Amino acid sequence: MDGELELIRRIADRAGVRGGVATGIGDDAAVLDDGTVLALDMVVDGVHVRRATHSFGDIAHTALAVNLSDVAAMGALPVAALIGLGLPEDVRGDDVDAMYADMEDLADAHGMSIVGGDVSASPVLTVSVAIVGRPTAGIRPVLRSTGRPGDTLVVTGPLGASAAGLMVLRDPALAAGIPEADALVKTHLRPRPRVADGVHLAEAGATAMIDISDGLLLDADRMARASGLAADIDLEALPMAPGVVATAGAAGVDPALLAATGGEDYQLLAAIPPSAGLEPHLTVVGQLRDGDPGVRAMRSGRDVTPARLGWEHRGA
Amino acid sequence: MDGELELIRRIADRAGVRGGVATGIGDDAAVLDDGTVLALDMVVDGVHVRRATHSFGDIAHTALAVNLSDVAAMGALPVAALIGLGLPEDVRGDDVDAMYADMEDLADAHGMSIVGGDVSASPVLTVSVAIVGRPTAGIRPVLRSTGRPGDTLVVTGPLGASAAGLMVLRDPALAAGIPEADALVKTHLRPRPRVADGVHLAEAGATAMIDISDGLLLDADRMARASGLAADIDLEALPMAPGVVATAGAAGVDPALLAATGGEDYQLLAAIPPSAGLEPHLTVVGQLRDGDPGVRAMRSGRDVTPARLGWEHRGA
Repeated sequence: MDGELELIRRIADRAGVRGGVATGIGDDAAVLDDGTVLALDMVVDGVHVRRATHSFGDIAHTALAVNLSDVAAMGALPVAALIGLGLPEDVRGDDVDAMYADMEDLADAHGMSIVGGDVSASPVLTVSVAIVGRPTAGIRPVLRSTGRPGDTLVVTGPLGASAAGLMVLRDPALAAGIPEADALVKTHLRPRPRVADGVHLAEAGATAMIDISDGLLLDADRMARASGLAADIDLEALPMAPGVVATAGAAGVDPALLAATGGEDYQLLAAIPPSAGLEPHLTVVGQLRDGDPGVRAMRSGRDVTPARLGWEHRGA
Repeated sequence: MDGELELIRRIADRAGVRGGVATGIGDDAAVLDDGTVLALDMVVDGVHVRRATHSFGDIAHTALAVNLSDVAAMGALPVAALIGLGLPEDVRGDDVDAMYADMEDLADAHGMSIVGGDVSASPVLTVSVAIVGRPTAGIRPVLRSTGRPGDTLVVTGPLGASAAGLMVLRDPALAAGIPEADALVKTHLRPRPRVADGVHLAEAGATAMIDISDGLLLDADRMARASGLAADIDLEALPMAPGVVATAGAAGVDPALLAATGGEDYQLLAAIPPSAGLEPHLTVVGQLRDGDPGVRAMRSGRDVTPARLGWEHRGA
């Protein structure tokens, strides 16, 4: 079996881009000629979520949230989503109602609509979501490939909460003495896409953007390689979610590395020109520069890049 | 477990339609304010296709074709598709290449692009496809719900080939003495969406349209109920694909009922005003009229509607 990244490379190599498409495979979302953005992400029980720890509502929320995050990463606003449900025999109508109740809540909070989809039998619970978004007036979708040397790298909020929450879910004993443990778990089960932040960054002139789905280092590496630049990430500058340092300590892992590689934060990583003003809720975590394309994790001026930058959902 | 139709009803009851959407859940595709059409259909191994009888290319072709058929049923042209692959451990990179080769061929034949998607591990081979289309200039997408009393019901080509092909796949002995057996199997494995026909019918003034995915009677029933009308289908008028009568005879089933309920033909069923001219490749199969909403199958003036109108992909 080939890894996810290798498969995507092979797929992208083969893809033909025909009329009406501005940007095809290779970004958080594709872009049509009129600026419409399109993305599809699927959530599979046992791979991205687990029925043992996630409610039906959690699973459905996550599936829609990760797609909203793709639209956010383009600096666009979501308009409509389609939902494909693969349902095992034991899933009841009430479970499906619970899934849709939570997806409708999330859709409503973002002013967008669930407009269709498909329901099928399947041996494994699968939620495929496709989403359509549009940028605000006069703004083009922000790609990951258009960062510029000297741009500042910023994140929209604290990192590590989802990874720490997953650790607590897997080993509840870690929660002892950590008042934020429940909040960490909730962040893992109910990711919150940064749609308003994405639009704001696009309007403020971000040159490149990506959502932090698989770990800051891996997603920064993707932005850097797509832009043909080096990205330096300062591990000592990362904004840590409350409770992450304590949880990492209890588990005996490096908190900054947990925050940098843990994945599923769904914060945005943006490159902004040095001249742009910094909003207070943005944290500078590094810089783009000319150099060998890819990410370097720095600590006190030393390169401490780990071998594993983040998560792939299909092992190599 | 609830049936597919019951689940879709529950989902549609809950759905809120917000800004930017003209038509939400309940048609072959959703329609945005600017006429953009969106659909998502998934194909699951063991449910819609079988790795024992379908090649990887067949499965991928089918997944894209059924989505193209949804766009065709709106009278629109496809622009872009997103592909979500759920891949079991034993699927190799070469298999994925084979899937994309056949999807790229089909995309190219329709002048549209595969622009992205997702790859995930999964215990079962799953292909989710989302598609975006646009109507030709000056034409609105054709819904299934807007048929009018007195409209003529037409189909775009012969029926029953896919159902007969599936019977041959399951019982190869049926093929003895039937020269068209291979062609029937091929029609089942490689459905051909009627995109040009759909555009032509929309431009010719079709009032309602639906693709025949689950059986002529079931899809006519959907159109009729959505339009608040009765639909009479004349079983003696159905255009039979070559070899269907012989295959049905060999299997001891009624050929017209096979063609009317077999499903997966991916021809289009359209309602056209009596004043519209009939193209030679269209066949009149019935009529819409005022009356109890739903389909009736007629034979020599008698109501012979079967209890089972077609296929659901999640049993009741």
